[in-house]
Amino acid sequence: MSPKDEPELLFANDAFYVAFSACDFIAMDDLWAMAAPVSCIHPGAPAILGRDDVMDSWKEILEMGQTQGFYCQDARAHIHGDTGWVTCFEIFGDGVLTATNIFVRENGAWKMTHHHAGPTNMRVTRSDQDPQRTN
Amino acid sequence: MSPKDEPELLFANDAFYVAFSACDFIAMDDLWAMAAPVSCIHPGAPAILGRDDVMDSWKEILEMGQTQGFYCQDARAHIHGDTGWVTCFEIFGDGVLTATNIFVRENGAWKMTHHHAGPTNMRVTRSDQDPQRTN
Repeated sequence: MSPKDEPELLFANDAFYVAFSACDFIAMDDLWAMAAPVSCIHPGAPAILGRDDVMDSWKEILEMGQTQGFYCQDARAHIHGDTGWVTCFEIFGDGVLTATNIFVRENGAWKMTHHHAGPTNMRVTRSDQDPQRTN
Repeated sequence: MSPKDEPELLFANDAFYVAFSACDFIAMDDLWAMAAPVSCIHPGAPAILGRDDVMDSWKEILEMGQTQGFYCQDARAHIHGDTGWVTCFEIFGDGVLTATNIFVRENGAWKMTHHHAGPTNMRVTRSDQDPQRTN
C-alpha cells in the first residue's frame, strides 16, 4: 500500500460531500466509477443498482437543492489493495447519519462504487458539534 | 472474474445470516477477515473499527439470543477483483433493514470486512413477504 493511498481515498470521500453540498451534479457524476459495478442505498430506501439508475437518483436529489450545509465528519479510511471504503458521519443541521462509501482505483484515481447512508438517533449538540446518542 | 466468484460471494453472505440467526458466535468469528481491515455499523449506531471491537459487539448481540428468525432477502453481488460487496434486505418479523456487506478474498475464501445495516420505514406485508414502503 502506498503512503498516498489513504489521504487520496479521504480526499475522494471529501470530494463526494463537496459535490453533494454544492448540488454539483457534474462533479458528482465524475466521481463515480465507470467500469466497476455501481450501487447506492439512500437513507431508509432499498438499494439502487447500476450506474444509470444511481446517477438518476443523484440528479433528482441535487436538483431539489436542499443539501447545502451537509458535511462529513470523522471519516476513517480502510484499504485492501485497489479497493477502499470510508466510514463517516454525515451531519445536516443537528441530524446525524452514518455512511459507508466504497471506492476502487480506476486509472489511478479512487472512484466511488457504492454509497450507503443510514439514519441514526444521534444528534449534534450545539456546544461541541460532536454527534451524541440521544437514547 | 471466475464464474464461481458470484455464487461463492452470495454463499459467504448467506453464511453470515445463518450464523446471525443461529446466534453462533464461533461461525460468526470465522467468517470475518483476519488480515484485511474490519469495521461494522450496526443499525443507528456509529462505526466500530477494528476486529476485536467488532467481534465484541457481535458476541454481545448473539449472547442476547434474540436474532432467531432474522433472514436475508434479495441479495445482490457486486465484484471488483478480490473485493466484493452484497446489498440486501434484512427481514425480522415485519421489519426491514437494508444492508451493505463487504468481503475480500483471503486464502481463496470470501471473508467479511465490513457490515452496515440501516433502518428503513418499509414493512413486509403478510400476503407476499416482499418489503414494501409504508410511506
